[in-house]
Amino acid sequence: MHAYRTHNCAQLSKADVGQDVRLSGWIHRKRDHGGVLFVDLRDHYGMTQIVADEDSPALALLDGLKLESVITLDGTVKARDAAAVNANLPTGEIEVFARSVIVQSHADELPLIVNSAEDYPEETRLKYRFVDLRRERVHNNIMLRNRVISSLRQRMIDQGFSEFQTPILGASSPEGARDYLVPSRLHPGRFYALPQAPQMFKQLLMVAGFDRYFQIAPCFRDEDLRADRSPEFYQLDFEMSFVTQEDVFNAIEPVLAGVFDEFSGDKSVTPAGEFPRIPYAETMLKYGTDKPDLRNPIEISDVSQHFAQSGFGIFEKIVGGGGVVRAIPAPGTHEKSRKFFDEMNDWARREGFSGLGYVTRKQGEFGGPIAKNHGPENMAKIYEELGLGENDGLFFAAGKEKDAAKLAGAARTRVGETLELIDADCFKFCWIVDFPMFEYDDEQKKVDFSHNPFSMPQGEMEALESQDPLDIKAWQYDIVCNGYELSSGAIRNHRPDIMYKAFEIAGYSRADVDANFSGMIEAFKLGAPPHGGSAPGIDRIVMLLADEPNIREVIAFPMNQRAQDLMMGAPSVVSPRQLRELSIRLAGDALDTQKSASDAEASDPAQVSDNDL
Amino acid sequence: MHAYRTHNCAQLSKADVGQDVRLSGWIHRKRDHGGVLFVDLRDHYGMTQIVADEDSPALALLDGLKLESVITLDGTVKARDAAAVNANLPTGEIEVFARSVIVQSHADELPLIVNSAEDYPEETRLKYRFVDLRRERVHNNIMLRNRVISSLRQRMIDQGFSEFQTPILGASSPEGARDYLVPSRLHPGRFYALPQAPQMFKQLLMVAGFDRYFQIAPCFRDEDLRADRSPEFYQLDFEMSFVTQEDVFNAIEPVLAGVFDEFSGDKSVTPAGEFPRIPYAETMLKYGTDKPDLRNPIEISDVSQHFAQSGFGIFEKIVGGGGVVRAIPAPGTHEKSRKFFDEMNDWARREGFSGLGYVTRKQGEFGGPIAKNHGPENMAKIYEELGLGENDGLFFAAGKEKDAAKLAGAARTRVGETLELIDADCFKFCWIVDFPMFEYDDEQKKVDFSHNPFSMPQGEMEALESQDPLDIKAWQYDIVCNGYELSSGAIRNHRPDIMYKAFEIAGYSRADVDANFSGMIEAFKLGAPPHGGSAPGIDRIVMLLADEPNIREVIAFPMNQRAQDLMMGAPSVVSPRQLRELSIRLAGDALDTQKSASDAEASDPAQVSDNDL
Repeated sequence: MHAYRTHNCAQLSKADVGQDVRLSGWIHRKRDHGGVLFVDLRDHYGMTQIVADEDSPALALLDGLKLESVITLDGTVKARDAAAVNANLPTGEIEVFARSVIVQSHADELPLIVNSAEDYPEETRLKYRFVDLRRERVHNNIMLRNRVISSLRQRMIDQGFSEFQTPILGASSPEGARDYLVPSRLHPGRFYALPQAPQMFKQLLMVAGFDRYFQIAPCFRDEDLRADRSPEFYQLDFEMSFVTQEDVFNAIEPVLAGVFDEFSGDKSVTPAGEFPRIPYAETMLKYGTDKPDLRNPIEISDVSQHFAQSGFGIFEKIVGGGGVVRAIPAPGTHEKSRKFFDEMNDWARREGFSGLGYVTRKQGEFGGPIAKNHGPENMAKIYEELGLGENDGLFFAAGKEKDAAKLAGAARTRVGETLELIDADCFKFCWIVDFPMFEYDDEQKKVDFSHNPFSMPQGEMEALESQDPLDIKAWQYDIVCNGYELSSGAIRNHRPDIMYKAFEIAGYSRADVDANFSGMIEAFKLGAPPHGGSAPGIDRIVMLLADEPNIREVIAFPMNQRAQDLMMGAPSVVSPRQLRELSIRLAGDALDTQKSASDAEASDPAQVSDNDL
Repeated sequence: MHAYRTHNCAQLSKADVGQDVRLSGWIHRKRDHGGVLFVDLRDHYGMTQIVADEDSPALALLDGLKLESVITLDGTVKARDAAAVNANLPTGEIEVFARSVIVQSHADELPLIVNSAEDYPEETRLKYRFVDLRRERVHNNIMLRNRVISSLRQRMIDQGFSEFQTPILGASSPEGARDYLVPSRLHPGRFYALPQAPQMFKQLLMVAGFDRYFQIAPCFRDEDLRADRSPEFYQLDFEMSFVTQEDVFNAIEPVLAGVFDEFSGDKSVTPAGEFPRIPYAETMLKYGTDKPDLRNPIEISDVSQHFAQSGFGIFEKIVGGGGVVRAIPAPGTHEKSRKFFDEMNDWARREGFSGLGYVTRKQGEFGGPIAKNHGPENMAKIYEELGLGENDGLFFAAGKEKDAAKLAGAARTRVGETLELIDADCFKFCWIVDFPMFEYDDEQKKVDFSHNPFSMPQGEMEALESQDPLDIKAWQYDIVCNGYELSSGAIRNHRPDIMYKAFEIAGYSRADVDANFSGMIEAFKLGAPPHGGSAPGIDRIVMLLADEPNIREVIAFPMNQRAQDLMMGAPSVVSPRQLRELSIRLAGDALDTQKSASDAEASDPAQVSDNDL
């Protein structure tokens, strides 16, 4: 018989009744029914009920053990009484009568209870993460993560991609977020940086001719943290050569739709090949955001022209001054009181907007000051144009285009949530496409890049040379799911001549470009293929599938929001010798730390570091 | 028609003759046959021959393009003349008659030639790695690496393992090699460390109840570099709960044998389930090393007793003084001249040993001074015991046990190589087991740990309490392939009581242990399962399969031997602002660098960092 187990704790069933078995696991729960002790024995796979009565020599030992102690148990499988059958448990028809028990590990008093769903402070949970991870919800989340990543990998390989490893000790770059730096010992005064993303490397792999790259890539940003951010995070980084934007979409839609389908349970998922492509201008109008949640059926419309000459003077003035009026339907609100509409207006003011106008409608009867001033007939025209019914309300966001779009988008979300119009049982994907290449920077009074200077402009050189820069779109795209941006991506600009020209339009000289981006430019001068890609965030994908709002619930060993690993004690003080070797010294606020560090070192009692560990 | 290609460069065959196709790729080679131009067009997948003659409008354009320029080409598939068929090429029966060509990327003068096997200095290759990676050998190596890793993953999953990600920003630990440190911005004076291995995390995953973990884990060591070392490297890190040593072997043998079988071509591989288990004492005797190359058929024997009373005084003296004499057969050396034997002796002296004695034998006739002094009859007894024949020579390594074993091992390798006894067409695996738990430290005059203090001693507490420490073995094992150690591994000591006792034997108090290893010990006090694992080196596996002696040949973007990324310019100088934010200053040798850095910053011409990159 195996030293630890003949079966795991999810394996035994009625078919095994009568067998002598050996199980190992953690004591999950104990129930003492007066001389009969029931123990739920738990391992990674599941749970098995153990019974010991006064006939069993194991009773006394089991009785004395604390929860979460680890045991190996020999016993006999018995069928449960019909009344005791637990249909929710794979092993729910049997129990194991304990004959003998070996204690593999005694558990001390626990900092948190494994067999309850009780909430504990994050500090407790992270400090004792190895206990927290035994709890059902987080255990399942981490296994979900593992399976999601494994499935993503297989799906990428099935699409003809090949996984590469790119360097983690890289070069610091001036753009983007703050780098984590790593002092070099061999090159005093010089530093490596951890990658914010393997962007350069994946593009260079295309220049090297590899065609279809992917990587479950660890990325690092030294930024202030939030619930959905971690200093290290993973992305499904990929890049393809000789492709158009549509090729990228066709390659990745089956991967994303497939993995969501596989792990979303009963929720519906936008099928591969059917992800809507929504131009940036359209999403800003219809949804007031470039991260639209398509589960919300409400669509915003521009109704500015209706108010160009209107009895409602405020809107007339706004439209006359170049502003816009956007309409946000609130369907089926005829039973809603005035308070519902007024509170939306109050909310908009709290959010810093000037206010949210509205029209009520009940059996075709309009209500509210805007309807009154604009006139019911004119209002009916708007309703007709928007396809609204006789019991639908309507909110209005008016102002400069950007502000009105933003307010309309926020109002759309709030109306959808309040009226419970958002279908929680689906994942709705879309692509946002046709981002503008350039935008006018009001502060600097000049044309600048709108998003990513390294995307290929649509129309390439010809567009740059012949079109108004503000009309030029980029081959750039975001993938959005349920209102969350999973990733940006682009067909890259692989042509130095087009890159110089694009930068020139944004006011940068050839010398500027060479000085800042010479690595990439020089590589492109030695034979570069057209290429493009994207990098969906993996932690975000798992958060969506696990329905968890906090990234730390889907990472096995997360840092806290202060970027500390409370379990391992990182970051920590290091020895003066280590700093000397790296040719650095502490400075500024760190000097206090240095003092306490050298105190600590002086009292360090043991050195086991000579061992061959 | 697709913008870039209807087929890749490995796809077209005789079945496609007559088709109009579009191909994209790099101009690999051009041959001008007087008015007819042949171009080898290369992409990731393969090569297709393009033809343009004076009828083709593409001729002039193709003629003017430099090698490695990227083109998209429209043309018609034609069958090659029988004489021009290239059977080595999948597309060797056809060529594509070029109709029109679009240049996607003009290549400048190249720093290295892609279409030749010419050797270039490592500096050139690494600086222009994106060009170097287009060359057949390294391109294939990297794809082999990708496939090996992907196969390892699938095989681990098939064995019931699940892949986890453990933190890369971790805590610095006092043991082992030198850490790469990462200064914390939020916690001035404190540092993260990059993991030398995810050892603690994988064991904590077992304590957390996950049962079977693996990870293709990036690991980091700030050590001086060699041909087979890289600052970052990958290991197939795995750990299992409720297992014995045999369970670990049974889980991993199919993975390693499987992946070697899959990628080793015609070479034979030790089948899973048949990896020999060789006790440490036995390997030190028979092979003179704990990394035996089993492709070498020579086995060393101890012949000390034969020389306890011998006419050969030197050996007699050595054996009398507690030393040993080890015999290394040199089979079938009857035709070898005296020079062969003498040169082995010279080699041993050059290596710092006192010398390598020998006996020659030809048709049963012994030769050499040892045979003469020891006497042919006594020598024949040795030959009989060792099963040697009448044309086999024999070398002798004598001295203190450790020295003699080392010399014998080196001589075994040299004899095997010189006599070409090593079978190059196989991968021979073995496990080295039963490592001693403790050893006597002659310098410190005390018992100390022999290898890993955290391995479980065989016999557990009872052994520690009742046996001579120097007799106790550990549940520790190495996996060795063709003389290379792929990994150490162990069944871990998960019992605090046994750990305190083991450290006590090695002279460390309970307080010492708590001070240095409290994290692990405290975790083990909250319910820890028996567990064990290992971590075969992935770069080493790929090196063996690719038959490459240098780790940089199997890494896409390796650093050079000075730990520099010549392509990206890492490590690099960073800005004073970055250092200020991290509360560190340069010191020592780094101050020179600081000066040149601030000069560089002063002349920095452009800032594009405000863009949303």
